Amino acid sequence: MKEQEIINIIAKTAVGIGDDCAVIPKNKTTSLVITTDVLNEKVHFLPDHIPPQDLGYKALAVNLSDIAAMGATPKHAFLTLSLPKTSKGWVESFMKGFNEVAKEHKVQLMGGDTTRAETISIGITVVGEAKNDAIKYRDTARAGDIICTTDNLGDAATGLGFILSGLKKPEAMQLIQRHYRPCPHIAEGQWLAAQQGVHAMMDVSDGLDEDLTKLTIASGCGAQVQLKDIPMSDAMQNVTKDPFEFSVFGGENYCLLLTVGKDQFKGIAKAYQAKFKTPLHAIGEIDEDQGVRYYQDGKLTKLKGQSYQHFDD
Amino acid sequence: MKEQEIINIIAKTAVGIGDDCAVIPKNKTTSLVITTDVLNEKVHFLPDHIPPQDLGYKALAVNLSDIAAMGATPKHAFLTLSLPKTSKGWVESFMKGFNEVAKEHKVQLMGGDTTRAETISIGITVVGEAKNDAIKYRDTARAGDIICTTDNLGDAATGLGFILSGLKKPEAMQLIQRHYRPCPHIAEGQWLAAQQGVHAMMDVSDGLDEDLTKLTIASGCGAQVQLKDIPMSDAMQNVTKDPFEFSVFGGENYCLLLTVGKDQFKGIAKAYQAKFKTPLHAIGEIDEDQGVRYYQDGKLTKLKGQSYQHFDD
Repeated sequence: MKEQEIINIIAKTAVGIGDDCAVIPKNKTTSLVITTDVLNEKVHFLPDHIPPQDLGYKALAVNLSDIAAMGATPKHAFLTLSLPKTSKGWVESFMKGFNEVAKEHKVQLMGGDTTRAETISIGITVVGEAKNDAIKYRDTARAGDIICTTDNLGDAATGLGFILSGLKKPEAMQLIQRHYRPCPHIAEGQWLAAQQGVHAMMDVSDGLDEDLTKLTIASGCGAQVQLKDIPMSDAMQNVTKDPFEFSVFGGENYCLLLTVGKDQFKGIAKAYQAKFKTPLHAIGEIDEDQGVRYYQDGKLTKLKGQSYQHFDD
Repeated sequence: MKEQEIINIIAKTAVGIGDDCAVIPKNKTTSLVITTDVLNEKVHFLPDHIPPQDLGYKALAVNLSDIAAMGATPKHAFLTLSLPKTSKGWVESFMKGFNEVAKEHKVQLMGGDTTRAETISIGITVVGEAKNDAIKYRDTARAGDIICTTDNLGDAATGLGFILSGLKKPEAMQLIQRHYRPCPHIAEGQWLAAQQGVHAMMDVSDGLDEDLTKLTIASGCGAQVQLKDIPMSDAMQNVTKDPFEFSVFGGENYCLLLTVGKDQFKGIAKAYQAKFKTPLHAIGEIDEDQGVRYYQDGKLTKLKGQSYQHFDD
């Protein structure tokens, strides 16, 4: 039974499943934006391969990325820790990393629960707020939109490769850090969500191919991606033979994926660059066809690889 | 490492940990009341001993009980399911039970996440609302208060005994149902929270002894409990040799535990009986000593047994 089939059964009776967060009206001008996620040992992380402090950091950061994806400001967090017999030091290190991100983004830990379990499981709920007229969804892309990302793709997946292979080359450390400590694009998400020209937005957690597929299905459209325009770091390209394996299919980027009206793109990209001192990367265009298609030198290209799946799928 | 030690490490940086829910101001008159909990296979439930439909029912019901404990109205739920390779039928049954409770209490499932895991883990977050002047906490009991519960104690724990022993006597079925399908006292909680004479409130999830201990520690007081006044069902007393083992130390009652000002008790108990057609059970009195003490025929009594712990503690 695939994850999507289970979600379909649950979604039958749920509203709002599909976006990164649920949106609940707070008052006339503001909505609550809520995300809940679970990270399980051996599925989402390998405890021997990530220090507890980084795990605490990452666990909260990836949830804040969901809040960023809607253009909201994170406010409150709830944590449930299911733990096997674990040392006090482990829990203290975990919380140290968790609190680093919480402090950085002014998120208040409000409550939670701990319980015994056979393997580590981390449940996090984050409550954020957004102005009603500045919330973005993934089902509102339109044919002709420019597809953009807010960062390089593939660093974290390449870092994971180094972690799993046990290679500790100096040039690997930067990529490993990108796997351990993702940076939720909260300020970027808020700014982008306030732009009328931004039509659809989500975060890239499962990999460009999988997440852009979700965006196009939700919006009832298709996408053309220009491989030459996919932003990739030098560090990543220097160490991989097939960079698209990681940048297109690798997960855990936790930057934003958005579509911008063609006419507004130039202005938004310029203002974004001025504000964040980093480019908004245009990687392709939304069209009326189906599916996500990759182009190299004007020609449709079939890429090796398939959708990123969690470790055990 | 004990659960409480872990909570202490987390609580160092958290606000509001201690009550059943966190309270977040919504506007001038209303607050959001949020609880998050996780139920793990082998710790909180044994999959071979609870049908999936009942598990879905119970998972949401016990979270609604936390909302009831603050006097709030549950509104929205979020569900994360971590599952090993599970049949479609299992998930459908689970959701059927979950949706029964959701419908009964007008709670809307707003989102969630599913993921693969080695054992079943169910994470639930519920968001409720309460008027700011009608929220009750556990740290506000006062010496002289009458201690009350809203239901019999010990049925669910006795039911669990039957389930684990495999006995399927007809007289056991009622108690087993109480274990499978706890009834969150939402309407009762709202009504009680609106009474000025109700000073402190929480729900009884870990057993009277453990939960009353938490209430007295939070309130900086002690408690005298009269054993003859502990409400117990005939069904439970008929099948147990030592009913206090279950009523005092048995968990998963999910009724409310509250303290009421001595002068207001009579009026509140009468109005409660008239409204809910069931008594508010007075079981003892808050005093200025420390700890929870049990009395029989006016004499301090030491009970066998210790605080209820989850299966593997």
